[in-house]
Amino acid sequence: MTQIPSLNDARQMDAADPLATCRAQFHIPDGTIYLDGNSLGVLPHAVKGRVADAVSKEWGDGLIRSWNDAGWVDLPYRIGARIARLIGAEENCVVATDSTSVNLFKTLSAALTLRPGRHRIITEERNFPTDNYIAEGVIRQCGGQHELVHVSTPEAIAAALDSDTAVLMLTHVNYRDGRVHDMAALTQAAHDAGALVIWDLAHSAGALEVDLCACNVDFAVGCSYKYLNGGPGAPAFLYAAPRHQGGFQQPLTGWFAHAAPFAFSPRYEPATDISQYLCGTAPVLSMIALDAALDVWDSVDMAALRQKSQELTGFFIDLVEARCAGHDLTLITPRDAEARGSQVSFKHPTGGYAIISALIAEGVIGDFRAPDVLRFGFTPLYTRFEDVWTAVDRMASILADRRWDTPEFHARKKVT
Amino acid sequence: MTQIPSLNDARQMDAADPLATCRAQFHIPDGTIYLDGNSLGVLPHAVKGRVADAVSKEWGDGLIRSWNDAGWVDLPYRIGARIARLIGAEENCVVATDSTSVNLFKTLSAALTLRPGRHRIITEERNFPTDNYIAEGVIRQCGGQHELVHVSTPEAIAAALDSDTAVLMLTHVNYRDGRVHDMAALTQAAHDAGALVIWDLAHSAGALEVDLCACNVDFAVGCSYKYLNGGPGAPAFLYAAPRHQGGFQQPLTGWFAHAAPFAFSPRYEPATDISQYLCGTAPVLSMIALDAALDVWDSVDMAALRQKSQELTGFFIDLVEARCAGHDLTLITPRDAEARGSQVSFKHPTGGYAIISALIAEGVIGDFRAPDVLRFGFTPLYTRFEDVWTAVDRMASILADRRWDTPEFHARKKVT
Repeated sequence: MTQIPSLNDARQMDAADPLATCRAQFHIPDGTIYLDGNSLGVLPHAVKGRVADAVSKEWGDGLIRSWNDAGWVDLPYRIGARIARLIGAEENCVVATDSTSVNLFKTLSAALTLRPGRHRIITEERNFPTDNYIAEGVIRQCGGQHELVHVSTPEAIAAALDSDTAVLMLTHVNYRDGRVHDMAALTQAAHDAGALVIWDLAHSAGALEVDLCACNVDFAVGCSYKYLNGGPGAPAFLYAAPRHQGGFQQPLTGWFAHAAPFAFSPRYEPATDISQYLCGTAPVLSMIALDAALDVWDSVDMAALRQKSQELTGFFIDLVEARCAGHDLTLITPRDAEARGSQVSFKHPTGGYAIISALIAEGVIGDFRAPDVLRFGFTPLYTRFEDVWTAVDRMASILADRRWDTPEFHARKKVT
Repeated sequence: MTQIPSLNDARQMDAADPLATCRAQFHIPDGTIYLDGNSLGVLPHAVKGRVADAVSKEWGDGLIRSWNDAGWVDLPYRIGARIARLIGAEENCVVATDSTSVNLFKTLSAALTLRPGRHRIITEERNFPTDNYIAEGVIRQCGGQHELVHVSTPEAIAAALDSDTAVLMLTHVNYRDGRVHDMAALTQAAHDAGALVIWDLAHSAGALEVDLCACNVDFAVGCSYKYLNGGPGAPAFLYAAPRHQGGFQQPLTGWFAHAAPFAFSPRYEPATDISQYLCGTAPVLSMIALDAALDVWDSVDMAALRQKSQELTGFFIDLVEARCAGHDLTLITPRDAEARGSQVSFKHPTGGYAIISALIAEGVIGDFRAPDVLRFGFTPLYTRFEDVWTAVDRMASILADRRWDTPEFHARKKVT
């Protein structure tokens, strides 16, 4: 960069942005620059009316009839089909259901059943913690014969796969540093070792192009309240390849996983399609908010999305390094645009959440991950280059006069 | 009954009802008599505004900050505490989370861990099927050494308990016939045998008085979308006695079950309080609808509720037997008011869902459970004696001219 881009330069980039019109479909609070869509996506306008109708008309007037008449019973499949397009999944292979953690429990349990006699589950030390906690829970429940192997660097994963490996379980885009794994290569490596793969797409779905089918992935789980904007705690999704439907059972065999849920037969008879990965009754209002949030996505070209994402994150990195130098920020996200998701993270030795808190006080909402990571998410559907420019401008000012370094900001506690 | 009560008699009963004013807090669609609150409770007026605010203000404006500022992170506990009062639970022993099926998986897995070396899980053949399916799933996952014993009659349960019994798992009020188990006696019998108990309160919470603490219950799970009116698929609840918190782990160890969820430590460290029964992120919008629905309950006297419930169900039984005699309806709900929950069920050899469909066409919404049960729920907070009278009046008319016995009504299919 020979000259530091100006606000006007940023605005020119926005004027040339083919996705610029998408922003109008979202509620962005006045005066807020929101760089935390990778924690909780903003509210799509469509959700408000749709949820109000679901409460008043579907529940209030339709009552029990709405399970049929309003299609509540089909929500897991209907939403699943819409998400399928965004992650390159085959038809009838995705359901929206439960939480990511619960879905990981199902798929990991299923995967172990499919690889009897193998004892190792490979994960990363740096994987999102709850994924590893769930694996610990599965192992304990299955009698403790399995071992959870925490590989310490991404480069060491392929070498850790061996003939005793049952499952390779990874998050595609790392939640801390935003680094992207090579899904095709690692899936192939796992298969070469005779193992199965489970990909957590929490920071991928709606953030970049994913092609589960082309990568020959076995299972995937993911979150819909980040880049998909499904609302706080929106139900998660689960993918199972066609070859992993039928023939065996995941352990959370609730009635929606039964071949005939409403026959009320006393013994479980497994569904043989993607239904077998459902469990109990879905939280309909949260499902409907998610369904409405997905309207925005139906017309989005994922290649264009990825390109804008890379431009936004690159613009942010360049600006921070140009304008915030000398303030102890260390980039931990890959500089190579292909190797990062839609976030940028910096470490800071002492500032941590105090800097983020000072930024929030100035209307720029970023995120913090313990112990020392400042994390900024760039959601291409509603983040403008102008927002990136202004965010860095405010950060430069906060760092320059050490406005963050007060007892009040240091005392702030992050909850989630 | 010497004389069949008239509509006017019913109205006089309503005039004397101490709970009559509660009805104004609910949205009852015009022209509808809703006797299916044991499938999906009606909409409390308070929900509409509260959910609209949660969408627009908490999510839309507050965004990620609402996890702290709007108290989203406390919802499982706050809602749990409100439900605790209705089921006689101690403080800090109930959380609202996941589905009933998932919660049963957690508690049953925990209970088996607490009774190592014992192999039998006692259930009823007539238990709600998904509960038994979940037990099958737990057993398979734990290596198949356990046996699920389906006791065929309620009377045979106590005798089935032995020194190899790990868990007695029952639904307090049966979903088909409405029969109530003696929670205190069966819990005591299980404890005498050295076993633990899990009670499913799906048809009890908000329907009758429950005193988990006095009965010395170990675990309970339940549903909040029936008598508690929490909305379609509202998150379920889970009770664990204080003695079953800490010291061991349920298997669904997601981050919300961690001692420090937001420390992001790579290994699972179990929470030692009721948090250990949480798992992933809660569906906030559905949780908030449930929270708002519970407002109604804060002032309800459960003894008065139970009394009205018994009067409503007794009134219905008497009227049906007086006015619908000779039409092949057989009462399967206990005639003894103390022995039944807040529902009344009849069998019919050929009518089944066709009769229910004909009733629905006349504005009376009842329910059907395969293969031959007509099921009517009486929710004391919003059902009037006048509604009971009118429902029976229409049923008598439908049965008298066999209006239900048409190809169209026979062709109707029930979904849920």
